[in-house]
Amino acid sequence: MDCYFDEQRAVEVEVPINIALIKYWGKRNEDLILPLNSSLSLNIDGLVARTRLRCSSKISDSVTVNNTSVDLEKSKRFRKCFDYARQLIRGRSCHENTGPHLETEYGFEVSSTTNFPVGAGLASSAAGFAAIAVSIGELFDLSMVDVSSLARIGSGSACRSVFGGLVEWYSGSDQSGSDCVVKQVFPENWWPELCALIVVLDPTEKEVGSSIGMRRSVETSELLKHRINEVVPKRIERLKVAFQSRDFDEFARITMADSNQLHAICLDTCPPLKYMSDASWYVVRAVNEFNSGNRRRAAYSFDAGPNACIFVENNNVVGFLQQLCRYFKFPPKVIFNLESIEDHFEIPQDVNPSTSFAIRDIIVSEVGGSPRIIT
Amino acid sequence: MDCYFDEQRAVEVEVPINIALIKYWGKRNEDLILPLNSSLSLNIDGLVARTRLRCSSKISDSVTVNNTSVDLEKSKRFRKCFDYARQLIRGRSCHENTGPHLETEYGFEVSSTTNFPVGAGLASSAAGFAAIAVSIGELFDLSMVDVSSLARIGSGSACRSVFGGLVEWYSGSDQSGSDCVVKQVFPENWWPELCALIVVLDPTEKEVGSSIGMRRSVETSELLKHRINEVVPKRIERLKVAFQSRDFDEFARITMADSNQLHAICLDTCPPLKYMSDASWYVVRAVNEFNSGNRRRAAYSFDAGPNACIFVENNNVVGFLQQLCRYFKFPPKVIFNLESIEDHFEIPQDVNPSTSFAIRDIIVSEVGGSPRIIT
Repeated sequence: MDCYFDEQRAVEVEVPINIALIKYWGKRNEDLILPLNSSLSLNIDGLVARTRLRCSSKISDSVTVNNTSVDLEKSKRFRKCFDYARQLIRGRSCHENTGPHLETEYGFEVSSTTNFPVGAGLASSAAGFAAIAVSIGELFDLSMVDVSSLARIGSGSACRSVFGGLVEWYSGSDQSGSDCVVKQVFPENWWPELCALIVVLDPTEKEVGSSIGMRRSVETSELLKHRINEVVPKRIERLKVAFQSRDFDEFARITMADSNQLHAICLDTCPPLKYMSDASWYVVRAVNEFNSGNRRRAAYSFDAGPNACIFVENNNVVGFLQQLCRYFKFPPKVIFNLESIEDHFEIPQDVNPSTSFAIRDIIVSEVGGSPRIIT
Repeated sequence: MDCYFDEQRAVEVEVPINIALIKYWGKRNEDLILPLNSSLSLNIDGLVARTRLRCSSKISDSVTVNNTSVDLEKSKRFRKCFDYARQLIRGRSCHENTGPHLETEYGFEVSSTTNFPVGAGLASSAAGFAAIAVSIGELFDLSMVDVSSLARIGSGSACRSVFGGLVEWYSGSDQSGSDCVVKQVFPENWWPELCALIVVLDPTEKEVGSSIGMRRSVETSELLKHRINEVVPKRIERLKVAFQSRDFDEFARITMADSNQLHAICLDTCPPLKYMSDASWYVVRAVNEFNSGNRRRAAYSFDAGPNACIFVENNNVVGFLQQLCRYFKFPPKVIFNLESIEDHFEIPQDVNPSTSFAIRDIIVSEVGGSPRIIT
């Protein structure tokens, strides 16, 4: 295994962002990024971080994101991630009894690009850290437990992107984090009709970052503990049952209730955290109107930002986009990743949106896909 | 006591709206309007309903509000209130052994005006029903328990307006409502420095009425029960202690936390209820900025609408108004009820608000005053 130190190694991967159906909010350990509650998520195939990682004992750590160099002196997260990676590699070498190598340290050169705007609240850093973890895992043949832990150390929810399908991030209870693991609950082809519309809205104001926000909730919300202990465990079980039987109505009910509750906890925080804008609320209204009737056909989910993720089955994509046109001005071009949609939807010329809000981007995507190794 | 039936009787009263510091949200009995949790409130002296009530066995029930006639066929609340009043009067006559009078029924003629816009989300109906109850109580010498029950039957939180000072509405637990009573906790002159700024914002959209909203929360919120059982009782005790020692910092902390939690429960409702607008959130920001430092000097409280009630001690009124000018366009004339303020505050000419939001009205008022009998 001497090649580990003589060769320069490189790999390129593509990893989607994920969106939680049952939300993660609150850490039990800030340093190890261990969550207070388990969460469930799906990858959004259409929004990916593409990362090229090179490593060698002869280079120093460096990172560029969308061709902009990151100052690693200032970014504790990348340093922490690389140090943890070296620790995993050392542990692995040690385990393989390749003792002399322990003295040598790798440097990592990361070049990441995203196919969506960074800083638009689309979990770009989570996808980026997941991509770094998958790359290092591929190069050093790390276990998936190690890969997901490595992603988590960079950015908590990043760990959920390393698998396809419906993914559960177990909070665990051990102080070491040994039982804080990520698992695939259903494979990625389980519910092929399910897809997502990412609705990017203009941000109204700078928000409180989610790390700071969730710390503040842990310190001040009087409802968070009840959510964690009583509400989340039941919802996770019910959502798995709904997913198993592809019961969209129930899937939507739980997904929306949990998104609502994340923002409820944010409001129950002192000072309160507000991530949804008035425009976000028109998306909620559009979904509720679309759902009037016997069965829910769309579900919204909002993370710590104003943008919406709408889940629908593929036969409802066009109908929902038309519904949305009643409230929002659309961008000139909607980005589609589903070929079937492009043939069936055009922004209607005769409908005037009833609000002054504009959608910046809208991405229609399949969900649940796995990370892909490019080279 | 035969005069009860031969005379036409009339009275005129003025009753302030009240704002809850610990919020009421959720009924345990819809018909008797019994709340799921106790609440604490203060009257806002500057916003009153002035009501003239005439009653006689020879007239039929009628109501005008701000010179507009109310269709009693459509308004179940007034009918229910008048029927309950007749029941109380009969019970009282019966108790006094004035048997023959039981056969006769009174009719009520109500004429109400408010010194603030009805329908602006300023609890006008609550003040109006409280004024009817106080009027009938005055004419028939009802006990304060009966007066507050009568107000409650018209509009739940109206019952808190019948006393001055810090008022507690006890939820009770008896199914008959016999232990659902209102009491003054501290007299109205306890904390004379305390006052309120009512900030009326332009409504952004029609909201879900609070009766329907709270019913939906009772049915769907998974956090409401925890709030009612675990959070509210402790907050009520802590707020009483803070009020007793006139500890504004603690008063503000609890008041804001409970306002936040009301809106958190609204968001945890399915479909979610949204009462605060983006403009409301700039008031929150203004308060938080004003409070930066060691001690809180202002506290916001939002009911089921976008308007803010800001509590400050009188030496901070001018400073807070200046703070608000950084975010909002002010109305040409701010309404003051505190003479000391008029001499010290002018809308500054050299400050440009950083948002496009405008304040429609702003009323500065003392708090905690009692209902007043005019004639």
